[in-house]
Amino acid sequence: MNYQNILEEIQEEIKPFLEEGALADYIPALENVNGNDFAMSIITLNGEEFHIGCSDKNFSIQSISKVFTFTLALQNYGRKLYERVGHEPSGDPFNSLVQLEYENGIPRNPFINAGAIVTTDRLISIYKDNTFHEVLKFIKNASNYNTIGYDEEIFKSELSHGFMNLALINMMKSFKNIDNETNRVIETYFKQCSILMTTKQLAHAMLFLANHGVNPLTNEVLVSESKAKRINSVMLTCGHYDASGDFAYRVGLPGKSGVGGGIVAIVPKKMAICVYSPKLNKQGNSLVGTKALELFTTKTGLSIF
Amino acid sequence: MNYQNILEEIQEEIKPFLEEGALADYIPALENVNGNDFAMSIITLNGEEFHIGCSDKNFSIQSISKVFTFTLALQNYGRKLYERVGHEPSGDPFNSLVQLEYENGIPRNPFINAGAIVTTDRLISIYKDNTFHEVLKFIKNASNYNTIGYDEEIFKSELSHGFMNLALINMMKSFKNIDNETNRVIETYFKQCSILMTTKQLAHAMLFLANHGVNPLTNEVLVSESKAKRINSVMLTCGHYDASGDFAYRVGLPGKSGVGGGIVAIVPKKMAICVYSPKLNKQGNSLVGTKALELFTTKTGLSIF
Amino acid sequence: MNYQNILEEIQEEIKPFLEEGALADYIPALENVNGNDFAMSIITLNGEEFHIGCSDKNFSIQSISKVFTFTLALQNYGRKLYERVGHEPSGDPFNSLVQLEYENGIPRNPFINAGAIVTTDRLISIYKDNTFHEVLKFIKNASNYNTIGYDEEIFKSELSHGFMNLALINMMKSFKNIDNETNRVIETYFKQCSILMTTKQLAHAMLFLANHGVNPLTNEVLVSESKAKRINSVMLTCGHYDASGDFAYRVGLPGKSGVGGGIVAIVPKKMAICVYSPKLNKQGNSLVGTKALELFTTKTGLSIF
Amino acid sequence: MNYQNILEEIQEEIKPFLEEGALADYIPALENVNGNDFAMSIITLNGEEFHIGCSDKNFSIQSISKVFTFTLALQNYGRKLYERVGHEPSGDPFNSLVQLEYENGIPRNPFINAGAIVTTDRLISIYKDNTFHEVLKFIKNASNYNTIGYDEEIFKSELSHGFMNLALINMMKSFKNIDNETNRVIETYFKQCSILMTTKQLAHAMLFLANHGVNPLTNEVLVSESKAKRINSVMLTCGHYDASGDFAYRVGLPGKSGVGGGIVAIVPKKMAICVYSPKLNKQGNSLVGTKALELFTTKTGLSIF
Repeated sequence: MNYQNILEEIQEEIKPFLEEGALADYIPALENVNGNDFAMSIITLNGEEFHIGCSDKNFSIQSISKVFTFTLALQNYGRKLYERVGHEPSGDPFNSLVQLEYENGIPRNPFINAGAIVTTDRLISIYKDNTFHEVLKFIKNASNYNTIGYDEEIFKSELSHGFMNLALINMMKSFKNIDNETNRVIETYFKQCSILMTTKQLAHAMLFLANHGVNPLTNEVLVSESKAKRINSVMLTCGHYDASGDFAYRVGLPGKSGVGGGIVAIVPKKMAICVYSPKLNKQGNSLVGTKALELFTTKTGLSIF
Repeated sequence: MNYQNILEEIQEEIKPFLEEGALADYIPALENVNGNDFAMSIITLNGEEFHIGCSDKNFSIQSISKVFTFTLALQNYGRKLYERVGHEPSGDPFNSLVQLEYENGIPRNPFINAGAIVTTDRLISIYKDNTFHEVLKFIKNASNYNTIGYDEEIFKSELSHGFMNLALINMMKSFKNIDNETNRVIETYFKQCSILMTTKQLAHAMLFLANHGVNPLTNEVLVSESKAKRINSVMLTCGHYDASGDFAYRVGLPGKSGVGGGIVAIVPKKMAICVYSPKLNKQGNSLVGTKALELFTTKTGLSIF
Repeated sequence: MNYQNILEEIQEEIKPFLEEGALADYIPALENVNGNDFAMSIITLNGEEFHIGCSDKNFSIQSISKVFTFTLALQNYGRKLYERVGHEPSGDPFNSLVQLEYENGIPRNPFINAGAIVTTDRLISIYKDNTFHEVLKFIKNASNYNTIGYDEEIFKSELSHGFMNLALINMMKSFKNIDNETNRVIETYFKQCSILMTTKQLAHAMLFLANHGVNPLTNEVLVSESKAKRINSVMLTCGHYDASGDFAYRVGLPGKSGVGGGIVAIVPKKMAICVYSPKLNKQGNSLVGTKALELFTTKTGLSIF
Repeated sequence: MNYQNILEEIQEEIKPFLEEGALADYIPALENVNGNDFAMSIITLNGEEFHIGCSDKNFSIQSISKVFTFTLALQNYGRKLYERVGHEPSGDPFNSLVQLEYENGIPRNPFINAGAIVTTDRLISIYKDNTFHEVLKFIKNASNYNTIGYDEEIFKSELSHGFMNLALINMMKSFKNIDNETNRVIETYFKQCSILMTTKQLAHAMLFLANHGVNPLTNEVLVSESKAKRINSVMLTCGHYDASGDFAYRVGLPGKSGVGGGIVAIVPKKMAICVYSPKLNKQGNSLVGTKALELFTTKTGLSIF
């Protein structure tokens, strides 16, 4: 199949939708982007690459970082991780305190904010002050790009507006589901969200999940085959907050979105995809990104269903 | 792959688990089964069949009927169906009135009780007094078995104990999400739940979902390719109540369970599977059935992830 | 104090508010009233009466009937009644299924719909087919008016629109908190709501609660002193659904409102009051009625606080 | 009535209950008390005093401080205060984030933790760094005792365990219902909770609420007549978390409890009462204190109902 042609068709067809949606506005730093930006990258297991749009432009990966921290925590803790965070869809918006209170401070899954904060706490218990460094090292290694960093302005901005996440972590602390000092955990968490990457880099970084845990380009084992499958299943059922069912329904691929406008998706045994467009739909996922992925699976038939 | 050998291995390996779990006890009629029964059937797209255990024994399909009524309603209404019922995981137990009240009487998906009741109401608006007959006709046609019927005793027993479902339907009626008379809807709904089938018949009846909507043995189109994929995606994200994430995590296949002890699962483009064992785990899904499917995907590597 | 003058002042001062609010519209029968009607009646313990407006006009007492059924059930069951219904404010709207589900089918108090339905079920367990007759007998006796009856059209109208109450009773039945047949309970409940009385009759009927359980005009003991006090406390904390705190705050008297536009209030050791005006505020309580009572306690200083 | 005799009877009758209940254990500092301590103080409007037990022993007033901060905030803001905090019973436990989230960060009333934190934030907007000093000044003035202070150890202990309150304040901050810096608000709040007083001092400090806002011993107007009534009504409907209905039911007086074991109660136009016994019932209110007040109103007939 000629993926480059398909990307070009998609770029054409999403144009009318670039007007819709709205930039994330909860922190000023995220508003300083071009609302009309669009990029999409495909990398196949044998290393073929297809790109369109601004695929070398950095953007804030935000919640896509949750895939990396979940992978790293699962690597380290295995099943024991699930004593602290579940793997069920939440059925509620991404920052729901309600569910967390009814469920005694155990977040539903590692892809809602509370769950990712717990995951970060788990990593800090191992890596201490090196935690952010280790997360970044994992990403650099998985993507094979060595220059990845984070945006200090976005990080500071998140920190000074992160009251709801402070509410979440303090509530979990009160249920004894956070072991480390809350400020330290929340700072590490926000630094992870502030990592800057391009669609090209993110597609590379996700390849191991399309290939049973092994980076097909370097043959490095990043996670076991069974864990890779399970990370994919959690992306499918929980990767898009309370629109996860709709994403599975429309796109039919495991994926994870970030409020910065990026979405990654996996075609098991075939490829990794990343799309970027910063305006969001009502559920907080990239509006054009979701549309582009829907067009992609319709055109290629590459759904897992 | 030698599926018959695999079934034999599974039958051996699940034996210790037959002691665990408990029979559904909310109606007396469902307790009259042999707790040690086990059956598993596999039918591939080219018509090969593999069975083990009591694969010709009838059991109450219960919520597996929701797959058939959802398919029939989607066939008739298309996207308009989603004005009445969503396609998001509920994140709550199967009979939660809480969520239904907060969401103005629109059930989360067609695989929780409230959603299946709405689906039945939609069918009654079309088929009137023939509704149950049409559902049964659809199942007979999909499975190519003509003798399928329902159990009058189970039906009566459901009716006389169905207070929670009466609560659900009356609440939805108060939100104007039920058009027909409540008793008529609830009777048709319970009759569907009381249908008796074998694992052999159910595996046959699900084949069209593994084959893009076409029954591969008769070449009959039961539903469009795109709808078949979407039914699978809803099964994956919502098919097992509040254990849907866990089923996707462990088994990695679209599936639907019933409180009668049956579970159906789909390997897209390859096969349909049905397993039966009546004792349930805490979430109300067949304990041994879930285990058997987990063993099956581990042994065969046939996960969609 | 010259109560007649005060009533005249109130009648003048509430005039601008008669334009505000809206008639109950959940059943057509309740809309057939004059939105500008106003009546207020005061009866003191020594039998002095003061009336203004249409104080001889019948209206549907609706939830005010809950005071009579609670009294009758408390008389019969004493503390055992609280195994079935609490005496805490609900903090939620009057028909909340959410709270009822979280609290295993035990309603918060006898003055929300679910609680009054449970109370009626308790009475049916004693009085069987005579239940409605006994409730009416109690009201006739308490008020010393023998011609009180109910409105058949309102009753029928309630029955055919009562889906939310059917949801409530079926849910409680599923939690085994309803002993009798649901239709029988709900019919008796709606018949109680459809009772017609005047402000004059209702003020008389409430006198025993201002006088430690004894009707001061006939010296009949209707309920013990301690029970009378406790009924008053439940009226104060729970008598106005999720506006109970606001009513206590503004009016400062135990009271109970009905969606038909009536409100009763008690000044312990002094008098009973009833006000009627059919247009409701957002919480479903008589808008002008609440205002009139607020004016009354401000003018007279007769708050319990 | 001979109140001293009544206090002696009560002291005798509560003895068997001193074994029941449990000390607050959420911070170590609160466990360092004598579980068998009991004190009760009555002060009438004409200055008569009756005491029993350790009525000169200091204890941590905890949530009783909410009455003083509410009074001070109402004095300063009047009705505008209700844009930030309601006056309805919560129907939920004292630290419920659920309700707060559904209600957009506006706490139900000033006597649950979230509501008192908002009240403190309101005071800080006026008094800045002097806030705690002003609260203490108000209490000293109301009670006519000049030596009242707070316990540094309890304060520090609260601060280092206050994760749930930090969750509450951060959530309200995210809803823009907190204007000042969260740490500053929470420190002031905990300092107020750590104030030490005796039953004698607290009974004196509450006298103005029994006397229409005027301290009867000094004739100083602390708050307007109408505000005093309203504070009493909020104490009645909301003063004991989710046991407020039960307290009104059993005791029949406006009151406020603290987790340190104190309860204050008001008999309008007659007296103020304070009781102390540190072991708590399941709802977090002094077990023996509640019992003692119930005995008091039963023996004296001094209920407001």
